[in-house]
Amino acid sequence: MRGVITLLTDFGSKDHYVASMKGVILNICPRAIIIDITHDVPKFSISTAAFILKCSYKYFPKDTIHVVVVDPGVGTKRRAITVETRNYVFVGPDNGVLMMAALDDGIRRVYSISNPEILRDKISFTFHGRDIFAPVAAHITCGFKIENVGERIDNYLIPDFVQARKYDKTIEGEVVHIDDFGNVITNITRRDINSIGLNYGEKVNLRINDKEYVLPFMETFGCLEKGQPVLIIDSEEYLELCVNLGNAAELFKAKIGDRIILNRI
Amino acid sequence: MRGVITLLTDFGSKDHYVASMKGVILNICPRAIIIDITHDVPKFSISTAAFILKCSYKYFPKDTIHVVVVDPGVGTKRRAITVETRNYVFVGPDNGVLMMAALDDGIRRVYSISNPEILRDKISFTFHGRDIFAPVAAHITCGFKIENVGERIDNYLIPDFVQARKYDKTIEGEVVHIDDFGNVITNITRRDINSIGLNYGEKVNLRINDKEYVLPFMETFGCLEKGQPVLIIDSEEYLELCVNLGNAAELFKAKIGDRIILNRI
Amino acid sequence: MRGVITLLTDFGSKDHYVASMKGVILNICPRAIIIDITHDVPKFSISTAAFILKCSYKYFPKDTIHVVVVDPGVGTKRRAITVETRNYVFVGPDNGVLMMAALDDGIRRVYSISNPEILRDKISFTFHGRDIFAPVAAHITCGFKIENVGERIDNYLIPDFVQARKYDKTIEGEVVHIDDFGNVITNITRRDINSIGLNYGEKVNLRINDKEYVLPFMETFGCLEKGQPVLIIDSEEYLELCVNLGNAAELFKAKIGDRIILNRI
Repeated sequence: MRGVITLLTDFGSKDHYVASMKGVILNICPRAIIIDITHDVPKFSISTAAFILKCSYKYFPKDTIHVVVVDPGVGTKRRAITVETRNYVFVGPDNGVLMMAALDDGIRRVYSISNPEILRDKISFTFHGRDIFAPVAAHITCGFKIENVGERIDNYLIPDFVQARKYDKTIEGEVVHIDDFGNVITNITRRDINSIGLNYGEKVNLRINDKEYVLPFMETFGCLEKGQPVLIIDSEEYLELCVNLGNAAELFKAKIGDRIILNRI
Repeated sequence: MRGVITLLTDFGSKDHYVASMKGVILNICPRAIIIDITHDVPKFSISTAAFILKCSYKYFPKDTIHVVVVDPGVGTKRRAITVETRNYVFVGPDNGVLMMAALDDGIRRVYSISNPEILRDKISFTFHGRDIFAPVAAHITCGFKIENVGERIDNYLIPDFVQARKYDKTIEGEVVHIDDFGNVITNITRRDINSIGLNYGEKVNLRINDKEYVLPFMETFGCLEKGQPVLIIDSEEYLELCVNLGNAAELFKAKIGDRIILNRI
Repeated sequence: MRGVITLLTDFGSKDHYVASMKGVILNICPRAIIIDITHDVPKFSISTAAFILKCSYKYFPKDTIHVVVVDPGVGTKRRAITVETRNYVFVGPDNGVLMMAALDDGIRRVYSISNPEILRDKISFTFHGRDIFAPVAAHITCGFKIENVGERIDNYLIPDFVQARKYDKTIEGEVVHIDDFGNVITNITRRDINSIGLNYGEKVNLRINDKEYVLPFMETFGCLEKGQPVLIIDSEEYLELCVNLGNAAELFKAKIGDRIILNRI
């Protein structure tokens, strides 16, 4: 039986980093099927990587091992972890990047990686993707037991962005991704929207970058005029700020990490 | 036996869309070999995708399944189709994107995809790549019979750009691709050029963007001075507008879809 | 047993060239595992491709076949070669692009590719990646004997950039890569640095683009102020010019191929 390993990093595509990780994996576990999720996450953007993993992890076969290396703390004391969930295994730094997906699937056990048997002999300060995360994923794919990667832990980091905060008629979230079309994607879910009782066709007060807007909340943007902004729920159940046939990120000068406050009118 | 599935989209590389399609495929058919053709087709450019598919499909093993998702009409009534040709299978929207390649290989049968057995349970409005095209390709790769994907049809769309129009001494074509070097590639073939009797070394009248030029038609651009424009036939037998050591797209302000009229002098 | 083939080119990701090579490979050797190193080497930059290959080749399984197509001389009389080293096989043009890696691993035998049995029937002037390098790699992966690819040669090209020149207190090297962070990577190694007796914490005189700078040589840039330039040794043992939380390529206006002269003070 072959095993699938996915890779999600902020390494870009012009350097040798991703290839070195793949070489390490195939050296340890030649039958692994390696699939790139993306390597174009904005540098160091933990929330974007967490969001993209959340949107894609669940389409892969059961027992797929998802490796994420968006790791601004590499070389510091942040831990490397392996997370066993109901259907998958996640490998990456303990900085919250795995948690949107892992919590969604249901966390069973989390381990701090420390067993030298499954690490490269010499571990660099700056490239744990190659020296820790890739070999751990490869060993697990080829049969190494997860409970032997290191000590079981409970105090792993769960970052704020895993879910928006809800109050009476208010939701406070943040921008986690800007897609290729300029759509501004937030960590606010359909469930959050339902919890404040907002319905399709209603208007809502949106605050971003110290400015306020009144926007329609619609099922799609098909019936809007060109250039008109709108809030919709996307195919992964997240709230997006869109502009019909236009670029919402430009119109609202939105950046990843920007705070979004929604108020039902 | 393993089967090859190729993917060609305009999804770009920073989002989770392509990875979700790959996950769906491996979930249904774990032994599929998935190869990216490109995901950097200009957004919604059906003719560019058709051209790139035409240039690459035939190098793959017999029975490879080529999936194309450049689909500005997603969510409307355009059909999803499967095309069986002499040597390959093509899966994508019925908007003409498959036709340059399919006609080149020789169409045997075309089916409108409708069998719910091979689609995802819930089909989104916006992401048929994941919900229709990827699962259909995966099922066929793992043995599902093509004739069972849906109703056989004859009225599939054949777009204008599949071939240039020829008159006495005139050919009317269009720009279908601009490559990384700025070469302007048209849908005009060596056969079209032969049909108006144009020979290497002769000059030809070219009209693009309401301007007229007199250009040499050459075998290569090796003997030209730096910066000089020229028409050549490329390795895939298409007419290209090139500038020796320069950028033809900039010089002629050419864009995909621009009309090209050639007149033998 | 499956075999790994890696691909490293300057073809970019929007054209059909890389896909056509993969199709050719899978047609000849269906069990090959194809891994992209990168296709985003700056156009025609032989030294950058050589450097990226050197940094990644050794992580792959023994007997991996590394194919490099950065080939400004395609269509001229430059030879196509296959290099057998201690642990790997390299396939590409005889322009030096294979040599940083091949010399590092230890060259055993070099062959000029000429056997028509393992080439495509029709060889284009411009696309030897598809017509020569891909099929040769595929045939070798599926069992074709290296000694039958063509005549053994000794006069293959070893380019200047494979190593920096050392004098008494001086090293003369060049910029071979600029990474995604703007770090300026040179062909000067830790061994070169040791040979002029430079130690961590010392200052050194650096000349680039006709300007001179006095810079610290440090173990890491963790302890520097933001915006301060520094020389470090990276995880692949090469000297890098970095700016703490900044972009060294911009600060020093460095380009690939720029000459770097280091003088111990």
